[in-house]
Amino acid sequence: MNQLKIGIAGLGRLGKIHANNLAFRIPGCTLTAACSLMQSELDYARSELGVQDLYLDFDEMLVNADIDAVAIVTTSGEHCRQLTAALAAGKHVFCEKPLGVTVEECLSAEKSVENHADKTFMLGFMRRFDPSYVYAKQKIDEGAIGTPYLVKATGVDPLKFIEGSLKFAGSSGGLFIDMAIHDIDLMRWFLGAEPETVYALGGSFGFPQFAEMGDAESGCALYKFDNGAMGIIHTGRTAAHGYHIETEIVGTLGSIRISPVPQKNLAILYNSQGVVTECVEAFPERFAEAYLAEMQEFVDCVLSGRKPNVSVYDGTRSTEIAFATTESFKTGQLVRLN
Amino acid sequence: MNQLKIGIAGLGRLGKIHANNLAFRIPGCTLTAACSLMQSELDYARSELGVQDLYLDFDEMLVNADIDAVAIVTTSGEHCRQLTAALAAGKHVFCEKPLGVTVEECLSAEKSVENHADKTFMLGFMRRFDPSYVYAKQKIDEGAIGTPYLVKATGVDPLKFIEGSLKFAGSSGGLFIDMAIHDIDLMRWFLGAEPETVYALGGSFGFPQFAEMGDAESGCALYKFDNGAMGIIHTGRTAAHGYHIETEIVGTLGSIRISPVPQKNLAILYNSQGVVTECVEAFPERFAEAYLAEMQEFVDCVLSGRKPNVSVYDGTRSTEIAFATTESFKTGQLVRLN
Amino acid sequence: MNQLKIGIAGLGRLGKIHANNLAFRIPGCTLTAACSLMQSELDYARSELGVQDLYLDFDEMLVNADIDAVAIVTTSGEHCRQLTAALAAGKHVFCEKPLGVTVEECLSAEKSVENHADKTFMLGFMRRFDPSYVYAKQKIDEGAIGTPYLVKATGVDPLKFIEGSLKFAGSSGGLFIDMAIHDIDLMRWFLGAEPETVYALGGSFGFPQFAEMGDAESGCALYKFDNGAMGIIHTGRTAAHGYHIETEIVGTLGSIRISPVPQKNLAILYNSQGVVTECVEAFPERFAEAYLAEMQEFVDCVLSGRKPNVSVYDGTRSTEIAFATTESFKTGQLVRLN
Amino acid sequence: MNQLKIGIAGLGRLGKIHANNLAFRIPGCTLTAACSLMQSELDYARSELGVQDLYLDFDEMLVNADIDAVAIVTTSGEHCRQLTAALAAGKHVFCEKPLGVTVEECLSAEKSVENHADKTFMLGFMRRFDPSYVYAKQKIDEGAIGTPYLVKATGVDPLKFIEGSLKFAGSSGGLFIDMAIHDIDLMRWFLGAEPETVYALGGSFGFPQFAEMGDAESGCALYKFDNGAMGIIHTGRTAAHGYHIETEIVGTLGSIRISPVPQKNLAILYNSQGVVTECVEAFPERFAEAYLAEMQEFVDCVLSGRKPNVSVYDGTRSTEIAFATTESFKTGQLVRLN
Repeated sequence: MNQLKIGIAGLGRLGKIHANNLAFRIPGCTLTAACSLMQSELDYARSELGVQDLYLDFDEMLVNADIDAVAIVTTSGEHCRQLTAALAAGKHVFCEKPLGVTVEECLSAEKSVENHADKTFMLGFMRRFDPSYVYAKQKIDEGAIGTPYLVKATGVDPLKFIEGSLKFAGSSGGLFIDMAIHDIDLMRWFLGAEPETVYALGGSFGFPQFAEMGDAESGCALYKFDNGAMGIIHTGRTAAHGYHIETEIVGTLGSIRISPVPQKNLAILYNSQGVVTECVEAFPERFAEAYLAEMQEFVDCVLSGRKPNVSVYDGTRSTEIAFATTESFKTGQLVRLN
Repeated sequence: MNQLKIGIAGLGRLGKIHANNLAFRIPGCTLTAACSLMQSELDYARSELGVQDLYLDFDEMLVNADIDAVAIVTTSGEHCRQLTAALAAGKHVFCEKPLGVTVEECLSAEKSVENHADKTFMLGFMRRFDPSYVYAKQKIDEGAIGTPYLVKATGVDPLKFIEGSLKFAGSSGGLFIDMAIHDIDLMRWFLGAEPETVYALGGSFGFPQFAEMGDAESGCALYKFDNGAMGIIHTGRTAAHGYHIETEIVGTLGSIRISPVPQKNLAILYNSQGVVTECVEAFPERFAEAYLAEMQEFVDCVLSGRKPNVSVYDGTRSTEIAFATTESFKTGQLVRLN
Repeated sequence: MNQLKIGIAGLGRLGKIHANNLAFRIPGCTLTAACSLMQSELDYARSELGVQDLYLDFDEMLVNADIDAVAIVTTSGEHCRQLTAALAAGKHVFCEKPLGVTVEECLSAEKSVENHADKTFMLGFMRRFDPSYVYAKQKIDEGAIGTPYLVKATGVDPLKFIEGSLKFAGSSGGLFIDMAIHDIDLMRWFLGAEPETVYALGGSFGFPQFAEMGDAESGCALYKFDNGAMGIIHTGRTAAHGYHIETEIVGTLGSIRISPVPQKNLAILYNSQGVVTECVEAFPERFAEAYLAEMQEFVDCVLSGRKPNVSVYDGTRSTEIAFATTESFKTGQLVRLN
Repeated sequence: MNQLKIGIAGLGRLGKIHANNLAFRIPGCTLTAACSLMQSELDYARSELGVQDLYLDFDEMLVNADIDAVAIVTTSGEHCRQLTAALAAGKHVFCEKPLGVTVEECLSAEKSVENHADKTFMLGFMRRFDPSYVYAKQKIDEGAIGTPYLVKATGVDPLKFIEGSLKFAGSSGGLFIDMAIHDIDLMRWFLGAEPETVYALGGSFGFPQFAEMGDAESGCALYKFDNGAMGIIHTGRTAAHGYHIETEIVGTLGSIRISPVPQKNLAILYNSQGVVTECVEAFPERFAEAYLAEMQEFVDCVLSGRKPNVSVYDGTRSTEIAFATTESFKTGQLVRLN
């Protein structure tokens, strides 16, 4: 078998997930190089993952490492520059969301991808690879709910991690850009359409610090799509019960709802509180399978020459929509997208 | 409209439920008399239910009150004697379970009913009137699960009321007679068959007082039916989450499960415990509709001359089976029923 | 006991529900008169409910019948005129929603109610009396979810009754006025606040006839409340699975969701489709208990002199908001309420 | 890192699962050899898994292959002989259930394991590694349900695969040995006790062919444990909705139920049937994670010298109990275990 040699950039929380998957759980590839700004993370890669080829500098990895592809899991601000450099260096690229921190960056990323059409580029919208979302999409494509015309998406981070949310709020781009981009991508994917108009609201009900930073702790947005369909997003940072990602797709003949109870597993407790289901804590738990499946897809696409079903344009569109949503929230006005 | 005049005997917890239904919620009848050993309960009947004809003595009510029918909701030990007297006095009879506290009493009750075949007699197996059980029976009769061949029944009282359970354990007849008789009736009803063999176990895991009285706090029984079908009962007194009545009927083409989550209502909480459903507290809450529907059925049967679908024989059979179950628990042996 | 004598106006589908409750299931009152434009409905009242005092004309009933109160369950266009006449005639009034078909009617109704402050007036927002909503409100008042800041409300009629929906669409006032008024009332009730801004969308995805009438088959609206809270409504007419009324109240410390699965009862089927819960068919099934409880509350309020917790102003506000929502849907613009 | 070299014996349905896990998803090991009676399966191992060292004969693999450990996933009748040979050849052994097809074989396997105490031996009771069961065990160990005193276990194969069930019924050892052994192990594990008495029933309700072979299509058993606890097993072969594995552990302060709805994933359909959850099809889908986790545990145990928590004695005990259960079913008598 042909083994794809991959270098990973970024070994933070999500970087470690991807690195472990690449090192141990994905047929067809070998994690041969890693890059991080932190020596301790490189030490981890060496000792835990057996990676020998280690770099403190991304560009040095591109030049020196014997790799066919890179997985970019660095901070958002680096994505655009690194994917451009990697493509220019002749590497296939898997890049975590977001594509860029501005729409301009996204458009520039599009150019890079277009200029290296022989290389595989895939963006990390992992929800499209979660078994439940894959199942929902397939059911819909089979006609199980008729024509989908409304997506209701909820994405709320756990209250438990509010300190982290507050700490990074200033640099996150704001609630809708940081949190809603996956939901935006899902709406587009399920509806097969693009939003034309958005009206968004937000507020800070438990933690006024968000408002003080000009951000919102919780927000809602209502979208009108170019085929007449509708989308609703509810996002926030204070779910007491855990990490709540729920999506409903409503069609003319039925609907599909994914994860109204964000269950930790299949066990249910009957105790003095009543009947209780414990919930997933955070994204690594909820989307473990999705992270694995998306990276497998990337590797398979590179090896087979197939195009991934998440394109660079999905990244740009989601970003544009998240910015428009933020604008509506900030101005209190309807915002029209073009 | 023809109004059935009814007298009620017994105004305890369940008696009050029936009395309120008869007084206010059942077309076709009037609650005109009431009997209780306690003056305070008679006062309640007068002031809250508007009943004018009040008795401290059951036989006196039979003789003096202008009533067509009686509802017997007294202590179990009185049932057989009272229903016999009432039928002899020419009254239609609704009698709460159990039919009698011994099999001999039940057989004697059968005789009384047979001797007054022109009178309506109905036993209070209210679960057969609960909307969910009615629905299950209808679905089964329509063939939704093919041929039913196994009933799994769970009936556990709330831990919250353990003091009452302990207080009455001595006079209750024991766990299987006190608690399992409804489940036994349901098994017979759903399977359309009679048990031939029973093996029962029991123990006292949280409250050794039950064992000290020769009783069990929790018990299980496995039944073989004369058509080859099977039945499982799990009963007990210490459900931490509330009043747990759950029944599953398994058939050759599917199964139906009733109330695996004994939900208080349709609301679900998402809080720091996870996703939580509060549960019903006790039988009045769980079976409010069933108590109403069974009494309506009694009244309708009397007025129309129709036979109730719960007969005196259902009372005898359930009692026999409960005694056989108790015998198996006490002897540790298989017990065969004839 | 003091018996309230009530006359009912309107004996259609919902009228019959109220009439049966008044006739048989509500202590403290007697249904002594009934009024309908259809002789067959009056015959029904006589034969099934035992009502002797029957009228083809509402005003005649007001003048001639020996009644203390009227229950108005006629077509929406009659409500305002009839409640005004009834109050003027010295009757207590229970009136089904809507209060009026225009905001002007509502304001006129307010005047009538204010002019007869000694009379009890109650509007039929029955959901506030549904056990699950009552429970949710109480939990929230007890602080179970902290401060509520978002209500997500879904109300979709069953696809099964689409012909009726189409037939009455022309005279219904439109989707948001016909369908969303209960959800609007619930948002106000749970949030304790009034909407300031609304943006609404709608479309006709399965049945273009709605669009042809200038109406929508399905719609969504996003509200900003005067305390910063948010509200989302999704309403429609084509739920394949049944009658779907779902409400979620999100607070700073948790949330409560009511009826995400609009279950018919507590039975669950395991069959070749998977695990299946059948759903309620329509409002009479879903809200049977609520209709009973609200009418009991009305009678109790009259008898005790207590004020109902649903006021005439709730009717006006809901109507104003429903009209503003419709305006937003029709103009495609944000609409500000004052 | 130290890499464990493993050879797998058996490449059928479950063998392929283990082989894929060993080849691609388990850090710390390399699948270097494979053995099968079928050349096509060896071809699969070469082309899909990259295994070079291939054998048609188990003993030849033991002698010639450069392996530290073997995974035995062959037909049940081979397990005992092969594990004995492998241990004698100085290999660590992972062996699928059952340990042996008779109690004598199990006792002989115990001897082999005892004679090679320096080698790691682990039996494939994968349910103990399923995340939901692991969670339940941990909750119980933390005291979440007080003292566990009853396990209710259900294990029913999908109706969809009835032809295979019928085909292999003759050689399966019978329903309780083939199907209930995992449930028996779970009862022992959760209760920390051994059964003393069993009463079992069975029947063939949809497929009389089972009865004709002296077997049962569906069966129930009730166990008394040596600490007074109780166990109930319901097993069968005709679940219309899918592969149904459900377990409830009841304790003095609460209970835990695992997978009452054997959901395929987190998606729920709302369609004309009602609210529908599709179910898992079979064990590879339900226990994918468990198969991976148990093999990871085996590898980790070998590498670290730690003892697995599933011992050879667990295999013997489960087999003894399954045989006693079968005896009770066949004789209609209570059977006491020693």
